[in-house]
Amino acid sequence: MGARLAQAFLAAGYRTTVWNRTDAKADALVAQGAVRAASAAEAVGAAPLAVVCLTGHHAVRDVLATSTLQGRTVVNLASGAPDEARDLAAWVSGHGAAYLDGAAMSGTRLVGPREALFIFSGSADAFAEHQGGLASLGNAVHLGADPALASLYDGALFGLAWGTLAGFYHAVALVAAEGVDATGFASVATSHMPFVTSLMTEHARQIQDGRYPDDDGTVDVHAAAMAHLLHASAAAGIRTDVPELFTNLLERASAAGHGAAGVASTITTLSKGAAA
Amino acid sequence: MGARLAQAFLAAGYRTTVWNRTDAKADALVAQGAVRAASAAEAVGAAPLAVVCLTGHHAVRDVLATSTLQGRTVVNLASGAPDEARDLAAWVSGHGAAYLDGAAMSGTRLVGPREALFIFSGSADAFAEHQGGLASLGNAVHLGADPALASLYDGALFGLAWGTLAGFYHAVALVAAEGVDATGFASVATSHMPFVTSLMTEHARQIQDGRYPDDDGTVDVHAAAMAHLLHASAAAGIRTDVPELFTNLLERASAAGHGAAGVASTITTLSKGAAA
Repeated sequence: MGARLAQAFLAAGYRTTVWNRTDAKADALVAQGAVRAASAAEAVGAAPLAVVCLTGHHAVRDVLATSTLQGRTVVNLASGAPDEARDLAAWVSGHGAAYLDGAAMSGTRLVGPREALFIFSGSADAFAEHQGGLASLGNAVHLGADPALASLYDGALFGLAWGTLAGFYHAVALVAAEGVDATGFASVATSHMPFVTSLMTEHARQIQDGRYPDDDGTVDVHAAAMAHLLHASAAAGIRTDVPELFTNLLERASAAGHGAAGVASTITTLSKGAAA
Repeated sequence: MGARLAQAFLAAGYRTTVWNRTDAKADALVAQGAVRAASAAEAVGAAPLAVVCLTGHHAVRDVLATSTLQGRTVVNLASGAPDEARDLAAWVSGHGAAYLDGAAMSGTRLVGPREALFIFSGSADAFAEHQGGLASLGNAVHLGADPALASLYDGALFGLAWGTLAGFYHAVALVAAEGVDATGFASVATSHMPFVTSLMTEHARQIQDGRYPDDDGTVDVHAAAMAHLLHASAAAGIRTDVPELFTNLLERASAAGHGAAGVASTITTLSKGAAA
């Protein structure tokens, strides 16, 4: 991952100094124009922006402890809990540096293009100062001043991605039982995703307003359609966990009195304070 | 829905004849340039392509029974089970007409633009003949000659959409517990969806090949991250059904020996013939 990040900075024309605990790992980057640092401290000292990609916040602290941080901006891409991000931010600030917590939402697969989402939280000033450089990595978004936000969004977006993947795997299993191949289905399914994505925008507005019009169908209509999918899945001989969850969510929303409301009202039974 | 379809045909410059059991419902369309038919038979007789939008296959048969179908193409947009589509196709063919079963995947919200997915199955010749006209409705895709395919895909794509929505609602509930508003989260989340969609294409290829490289992380790595999300969700006081399902899927995949394989191997525990 560190190599992918350095390559993206180099590709964008930034002077990039690299350091890795296993020195040979930097060889290919040096061949591509990176400057090799003999130590983490030398790498941190070489530029106003230090991007740290290690496993775990303790490792980050151990490596940075040898460096002079004063006046620099530290970007930490190690994932961790929201509280860990706040602790590390306080520690970095205590050493006179600005802190940004970050997460690469497309992992190592995608670094550089616009579809690669990189989320950051922490110092707004530091983000504004380094936004151009961070945009070398992809779509660099600042979520807010609380350093814990990147970690919070990281988890939430991971769950969102898994929702899509679980729905997709179930769909593929269902159509496969009727002889449809996965890639053929995927070509149609991917063309449906811009619409599904637009529902997220629309439903977020409804959730914000606390009003759930039935433009995309009511909870009860969706529950009936989901019952059909559940039945079709069972009849096809595939596992039914996925449509069972959706049925449960919809039935709970209906039982809570939202049967005639739009499907986004389902969130009321998931949220904090929802009846058990 | 019928009105939206007629408007899309009119907007694309097609001579469009309309009929509704409640005659006044056609008034607005007539004002927009549609021709009013006095009966269903007159509407079907007015053009080579008859698009029928009713609730339930019995209603479709009742309305078409009064018409001369010989030589025409009937497109049925009523949703139903795969077997119902096959039965209706046989009935329509028996009356000398070609049959296409169809589904509007974005419901009434979106008719016309390219993001509106309309899936069709049945006669390939009829689809080829009317593809230009059907493209007035949106992205018109022919899935194959089996008339049941549109119904099958309809259910599968509904499950896929719900996966995304359930993941999204859970994510919104999670960030809301920390004071992040739904629309702010949605603006970031929607920018992540093109990447998530690209995973579907990639994973479909893996499923097709039956090989699951770990480019997007292994099952065990995802299971660990999901355990964090589950914990964070519980700590935030929101319902945990959604990450619980994903944890179950991942743990089942790991127990089946796929822990070190890529996440798409999860499908092996959902598919037909998977161990219970």
